Amino acid sequence: MATHEPIDAYAALEQAIDRVAESYDGRHEIDSLESAALPNRRAVIDALNHLKPAIYLGFYSRKPLTRASLRFCISEHLYPAFDILTEQIHRAVTYNDTYHLEQSPRPRSWSEQAVLRLFQRLPHIRTQLNKDVLTAFRSDPAAQTVEEIVFSYPAVEAITIYRLAHELYVQDVPMIPRIMSEYAHGGTGIDIHPGAIIGECFFIDHGTGTVIGETCVIGNNVKLFHGVTLGALSSPHKAHLSEGRKAGKRHPTIEDDVVIYSGATILGGETVIGRGSVIGGNAWLVESVPPGTKITYDARLTVAQTRRDGTHS
Amino acid sequence: MATHEPIDAYAALEQAIDRVAESYDGRHEIDSLESAALPNRRAVIDALNHLKPAIYLGFYSRKPLTRASLRFCISEHLYPAFDILTEQIHRAVTYNDTYHLEQSPRPRSWSEQAVLRLFQRLPHIRTQLNKDVLTAFRSDPAAQTVEEIVFSYPAVEAITIYRLAHELYVQDVPMIPRIMSEYAHGGTGIDIHPGAIIGECFFIDHGTGTVIGETCVIGNNVKLFHGVTLGALSSPHKAHLSEGRKAGKRHPTIEDDVVIYSGATILGGETVIGRGSVIGGNAWLVESVPPGTKITYDARLTVAQTRRDGTHS
Amino acid sequence: MATHEPIDAYAALEQAIDRVAESYDGRHEIDSLESAALPNRRAVIDALNHLKPAIYLGFYSRKPLTRASLRFCISEHLYPAFDILTEQIHRAVTYNDTYHLEQSPRPRSWSEQAVLRLFQRLPHIRTQLNKDVLTAFRSDPAAQTVEEIVFSYPAVEAITIYRLAHELYVQDVPMIPRIMSEYAHGGTGIDIHPGAIIGECFFIDHGTGTVIGETCVIGNNVKLFHGVTLGALSSPHKAHLSEGRKAGKRHPTIEDDVVIYSGATILGGETVIGRGSVIGGNAWLVESVPPGTKITYDARLTVAQTRRDGTHS
Amino acid sequence: MATHEPIDAYAALEQAIDRVAESYDGRHEIDSLESAALPNRRAVIDALNHLKPAIYLGFYSRKPLTRASLRFCISEHLYPAFDILTEQIHRAVTYNDTYHLEQSPRPRSWSEQAVLRLFQRLPHIRTQLNKDVLTAFRSDPAAQTVEEIVFSYPAVEAITIYRLAHELYVQDVPMIPRIMSEYAHGGTGIDIHPGAIIGECFFIDHGTGTVIGETCVIGNNVKLFHGVTLGALSSPHKAHLSEGRKAGKRHPTIEDDVVIYSGATILGGETVIGRGSVIGGNAWLVESVPPGTKITYDARLTVAQTRRDGTHS
Amino acid sequence: MATHEPIDAYAALEQAIDRVAESYDGRHEIDSLESAALPNRRAVIDALNHLKPAIYLGFYSRKPLTRASLRFCISEHLYPAFDILTEQIHRAVTYNDTYHLEQSPRPRSWSEQAVLRLFQRLPHIRTQLNKDVLTAFRSDPAAQTVEEIVFSYPAVEAITIYRLAHELYVQDVPMIPRIMSEYAHGGTGIDIHPGAIIGECFFIDHGTGTVIGETCVIGNNVKLFHGVTLGALSSPHKAHLSEGRKAGKRHPTIEDDVVIYSGATILGGETVIGRGSVIGGNAWLVESVPPGTKITYDARLTVAQTRRDGTHS
Amino acid sequence: MATHEPIDAYAALEQAIDRVAESYDGRHEIDSLESAALPNRRAVIDALNHLKPAIYLGFYSRKPLTRASLRFCISEHLYPAFDILTEQIHRAVTYNDTYHLEQSPRPRSWSEQAVLRLFQRLPHIRTQLNKDVLTAFRSDPAAQTVEEIVFSYPAVEAITIYRLAHELYVQDVPMIPRIMSEYAHGGTGIDIHPGAIIGECFFIDHGTGTVIGETCVIGNNVKLFHGVTLGALSSPHKAHLSEGRKAGKRHPTIEDDVVIYSGATILGGETVIGRGSVIGGNAWLVESVPPGTKITYDARLTVAQTRRDGTHS
Repeated sequence: MATHEPIDAYAALEQAIDRVAESYDGRHEIDSLESAALPNRRAVIDALNHLKPAIYLGFYSRKPLTRASLRFCISEHLYPAFDILTEQIHRAVTYNDTYHLEQSPRPRSWSEQAVLRLFQRLPHIRTQLNKDVLTAFRSDPAAQTVEEIVFSYPAVEAITIYRLAHELYVQDVPMIPRIMSEYAHGGTGIDIHPGAIIGECFFIDHGTGTVIGETCVIGNNVKLFHGVTLGALSSPHKAHLSEGRKAGKRHPTIEDDVVIYSGATILGGETVIGRGSVIGGNAWLVESVPPGTKITYDARLTVAQTRRDGTHS
Repeated sequence: MATHEPIDAYAALEQAIDRVAESYDGRHEIDSLESAALPNRRAVIDALNHLKPAIYLGFYSRKPLTRASLRFCISEHLYPAFDILTEQIHRAVTYNDTYHLEQSPRPRSWSEQAVLRLFQRLPHIRTQLNKDVLTAFRSDPAAQTVEEIVFSYPAVEAITIYRLAHELYVQDVPMIPRIMSEYAHGGTGIDIHPGAIIGECFFIDHGTGTVIGETCVIGNNVKLFHGVTLGALSSPHKAHLSEGRKAGKRHPTIEDDVVIYSGATILGGETVIGRGSVIGGNAWLVESVPPGTKITYDARLTVAQTRRDGTHS
Repeated sequence: MATHEPIDAYAALEQAIDRVAESYDGRHEIDSLESAALPNRRAVIDALNHLKPAIYLGFYSRKPLTRASLRFCISEHLYPAFDILTEQIHRAVTYNDTYHLEQSPRPRSWSEQAVLRLFQRLPHIRTQLNKDVLTAFRSDPAAQTVEEIVFSYPAVEAITIYRLAHELYVQDVPMIPRIMSEYAHGGTGIDIHPGAIIGECFFIDHGTGTVIGETCVIGNNVKLFHGVTLGALSSPHKAHLSEGRKAGKRHPTIEDDVVIYSGATILGGETVIGRGSVIGGNAWLVESVPPGTKITYDARLTVAQTRRDGTHS
Repeated sequence: MATHEPIDAYAALEQAIDRVAESYDGRHEIDSLESAALPNRRAVIDALNHLKPAIYLGFYSRKPLTRASLRFCISEHLYPAFDILTEQIHRAVTYNDTYHLEQSPRPRSWSEQAVLRLFQRLPHIRTQLNKDVLTAFRSDPAAQTVEEIVFSYPAVEAITIYRLAHELYVQDVPMIPRIMSEYAHGGTGIDIHPGAIIGECFFIDHGTGTVIGETCVIGNNVKLFHGVTLGALSSPHKAHLSEGRKAGKRHPTIEDDVVIYSGATILGGETVIGRGSVIGGNAWLVESVPPGTKITYDARLTVAQTRRDGTHS
Repeated sequence: MATHEPIDAYAALEQAIDRVAESYDGRHEIDSLESAALPNRRAVIDALNHLKPAIYLGFYSRKPLTRASLRFCISEHLYPAFDILTEQIHRAVTYNDTYHLEQSPRPRSWSEQAVLRLFQRLPHIRTQLNKDVLTAFRSDPAAQTVEEIVFSYPAVEAITIYRLAHELYVQDVPMIPRIMSEYAHGGTGIDIHPGAIIGECFFIDHGTGTVIGETCVIGNNVKLFHGVTLGALSSPHKAHLSEGRKAGKRHPTIEDDVVIYSGATILGGETVIGRGSVIGGNAWLVESVPPGTKITYDARLTVAQTRRDGTHS
Repeated sequence: MATHEPIDAYAALEQAIDRVAESYDGRHEIDSLESAALPNRRAVIDALNHLKPAIYLGFYSRKPLTRASLRFCISEHLYPAFDILTEQIHRAVTYNDTYHLEQSPRPRSWSEQAVLRLFQRLPHIRTQLNKDVLTAFRSDPAAQTVEEIVFSYPAVEAITIYRLAHELYVQDVPMIPRIMSEYAHGGTGIDIHPGAIIGECFFIDHGTGTVIGETCVIGNNVKLFHGVTLGALSSPHKAHLSEGRKAGKRHPTIEDDVVIYSGATILGGETVIGRGSVIGGNAWLVESVPPGTKITYDARLTVAQTRRDGTHS
């Protein structure tokens, strides 16, 4: 019943708060107070959680759907998605233009158009995702139904968000595509940069730890496993880059019909994995391989026999 | 104060919505509108979040517990878990029977019985999980208390959900076990297929990226680290499988008392890691090893010396 | 409209509940009912979600901030963080002292002081994190702005929580630091033990699957990639340890200016990676290397050529 | 930290619960367990809170509205209102038919039609309510704007809900209209039975305590104040009623253009207040008055003078 | 995008806050900071919202109920009600004993016992309330079903809460009973002091504005209408009272089988309305009436005839 | 499992929605779509629910309060109250200026200043409310503690909100004061127009149905009961008013030390109830009374004796 904190604890807290407030002295980049101008990560995620049902309506709706109610049910997701995304993109664009480009910001209508262009692409994206889902179904003997793939496969989550984020990336929307892809990364362990270009019928099995870099180009019918890195040979410090953010093609090209098993690492912007190749698990590749190559990782292992009771000698 | 969106933005939005609605033309598998029939992922997660407190009651309850209130506190979780799981399993079963097996669906009582059988196994599961937790405690020098393991170890989360999902898997419940295990996968980075058979005193340290396939058989006192793959040699396209979803034993067998260090990959349904073996990190095994084998990965490294100031020559 | 469950389903449920209640017979460690005494994981996460905005105020606040309102906005987060953390630490301390140390528990003021000490360190932690964020910005060509790093990079999340948890770890606060770091681990796939000692300008790119053990010592300007393990050579069973939880230095030391690429594994408490070294991806190191060493992993691959049409022979 | 409740408190609680459970022995009418069949009051209120915005869209919407988005914004309220009301009416109808009429219940389509008929009347209801709002505006010198009337006047709330509930009442929907009107009563103190028939341009000033009985007939341009009772002469016990629930016209008729001031009581089914009459405050009328009557309440007061300092002698 | 509030607005706000903080200088009774000690109104209401479903289980439960699940469903409400009420009563008792009685406070077990006694009375209260509900049903020709009375009648809400609050009042629980009854008052307009003694088969029709004072004694089968005052003749200032809070019987006694119509006022602690009396609407009584009296209010009205067209001359 | 609504129900719903959308044809005043410009009632209530704790901090806070934390706890309420009220007042002012005054709207800073002036008055308002609370305590023999008055008395709620709303009314803030007072009206049944001028030590017992008009002037130490009307003699249609909204003084003046019992009605802008008068229940006054007058309502009742068994002859 008594007040738990003696007065001096709160007095000391007040002093600590003073010190933290003083630390916002403008000497750190993270001291920026322009909060109202910044996009809100939570809102971007909300928008994604409206776009996914618009794509897989029958899998998300908790209400009975009929042809007559279908259009409304899509509107119910796309209206809020439009309002939220327009607002968040407008914030990102305004902030970017004002503080980084130091020019007068693009008008709100620019952001509206960016969202509308994404929405106009949704029928196409749905066709692509349908192929991705079917590919997953055909590839995984453990999958019993298409439904369980849409419901539970992390790759579907990651690829869906990638395909949406990519549409904004190609329109040069700042910040938002990356917020989207890192959200997918956090939930699935699959890190697909929104700048990557990925063909049809793409699947990643298990997926945790797989990384697909910004300038990757991936063909059709490519299947990856978990722990696959499609990365840059080395990450030069920005200071070494020529002007502008584009650092050139730094990540590999994977042609059609390639399979890359778990733990394989393929690095470099000029590395091309030729059509139909199969890259074995744990492989490490920094050079191109011609079409039809089959790489098998040949682990060198030292084997010692212990006593039969299983304790090591 | 002014309306932010000029009328044409919303008019364009309405057109985009028309196109999306039209894209639900039935040509894609993801056009299915049978939403009310499908299980709801969120509800399955809610059920899990009732089952965990029923198992580790003292660790989750925010109210004081006494022997007199214990039974009520369990009921408080198992009643909603029963209702939710029965409903979700009934949806999955009905959908599966109707659309995939094309037969008249099993009655709701079938789903009730499946849930009751899971609940009847809870005392046994609690005994198993207690052993798993103790194993974690004994294995990890960084663990100070059993409590912190239950609270914070991702392996405890993953194994708990695995042991629950497995009980439904063996009853042939469709979709739900996989939704459960992918939820655990998303939160922990540990991907244990509910079909795997895992013995007592199982532990996975760190765990991110570890994959345990559907037909794995794991003995007692097995310890894995992160990044371990117990996988299939290759994933044949379904078209190549004989009828029925069962594709035979595709994943390895790990006998009692085995330790497998981080990054190791063990593939193949006929691969058996003999009792008491120790598989070193990053090892790559596609063949069986006898009991008591100690595999050490022998990395071939190229070493170049740079200037003492740490810049590379 | 009819009651869905026939009376016998609930009767069977009641019996199942009886069995579960009976299973709390005190024979399992997880039978403990001392719930009110245990810290609440959810509350600890809430506290973290107040500390992060206090550190990156401009990035989280949804309200306009001015110098006049800055101090209040910090208070708004630090007051609840103080109350929640004090309560949770007090629970952890009391539980630990009573049940594990079997001594009379430290007073609540001990926990207050622990939180105050953390808060007094916040200006210093902000300076450190600002350097970490800038390092990320400079290292990643894909990063366009500092803002997108704070918003979306998993490494920023993981390092921020590590730096907070570490301050409690060094004060010997039980359980709470580990709950914090496992929360970060779940969200990012990056597992940094709060006991590790990490210098300035630290960055982890992508990050999924990276593990940093309890007794690691990491210098300044160190950059890791995903899938890097800084681990122990082997995890002895506790029974083999001398008394007390401290098992000695079991994890490596990484000196200043080191880069460690994805999938590399460095093990052992006496292993030192000398200043300025570059450890290639997938490397496996259990011994020290001198400053300026450049390790390249030399994968042995078997290459087979298939027919040009991409099908395997 | 200690468990607050000694074990015997919960043991006593368990006993008390036993007694309450036993008290559901079927001897009380309120022992009915047919919960799933009954309408849910909260859901009915939710439906009302979707209907009000559909009527006064511009006053409730938090988003900018344009002609292009108008239809969607209405759908956004009428779709859930349709689903909720259909479900709740179907429950009420099924329960009523099964338990009270003891006949096989009307099909769900009956309830759908009832809701559709209400919705088809919405344009007409909007026209009526617009007149009610304008009447309020013109009558109350304290009202500055039409907007403040829609926002804040309890009479608008009460009349809006009455006009909706009445549409269901005339279709013989059981329970739901009364749940609606009592919700309005609770929030405003104005008790309008959904069976009353009320003309155009109706207004109630202040309103608290005003009661309008089931068989009232009220003309156009009628204005009431607070504390007005339009009631029955006496409430016979049901036993005295002839069969069927209809107890005949028991409440007065108020012709066009009547004003009734606060506290007036008008009783009886044959009582008619003629066109254009003005009924003074606190009047008590059990007989008809011809058109154009002006009733002034002539309070008999005893006046005593106290000392000039205001204390009573 | 710009920060909306210029710095001086928040600076002025900070100054205003200073002045408010200074106004808590201890000179006002409302300056008390003993917040942790005071009961929480919201919590008391939560407890009521658990007690009502325990009483009318079938009317509130959203889940199917069976005999097998009945006991659990009651527990689900009475457990939290027990915990909340014990806590809130303990706060009220402790505060009252410490600050008003200036004695050492009753132990927590006193509050537990008070709640248990209330719970032990629940079967009896359910019997009483069942009679009240049936009385309402029989009295109101507009009521079609018992269900709609339980769902929607404000009198049922008010009487239910009164009967619960009264059980705590007779145990001398401070503050809580009044918080309960004022909550009912706010929702229904019916103000029943928890100290009143009310017999069986009680009903209040419409109810808004009805007041029943602390020392009223009401017999069986009494029916009131709205706007009825059962009050004190005058409210002496406390200074004039003899010591102790009890100010003697100040409110009337209503014997069995009395009906009191709307707007009637009956005042005085010695006023007794004899058995079977009927008190007409708007009556004003400050003296007793013998059994069987029928009081008719004889309003003196001045009637003026206006022109037939309804406009006043 | 089947979709419940046949396609034609939703098709009919779509048609009904068309009709409702068409009904927004601009012919009704309630067709206005300027939603974004209008104040939001819910937000205004949120602001009130921040102002009340700032006034009675110790009664609302759920956290322990100390002098050191007091200022923060006030800020925690006044900051959001400032932001919300500024926004809502700005909307009301802009809407009013644009649409009703048809002039360019006052700048946002005008609204900020209005809120700041309210906040600067809070210390004074707290002093007034403290006197009101003490008056209630001294007047009501049923009140045991000051705390229960603050917690539960509807008059405290109504007077607190009145005193806040009045401060905005005198600054000519449109709409918002009325939204506030009608919120209080809905919750308490007490209708105090924010324009009334009310002195110190004001109390209303029970309160349901009491109405205090816009131009009332009430002195110090005035006590009202429930059902008291301080109203206008008649409410002229606006058309009859001279230009401008001010309709002159239409409601009575109540001098110091007056008591008005339940149900009394006092009407007219020139009616003055002299100092120290006591107005009996149900009195009806349209003329002034000199100081020290004691009015007793002398009800004319017709008494009929029924048979002793309580049945009416």
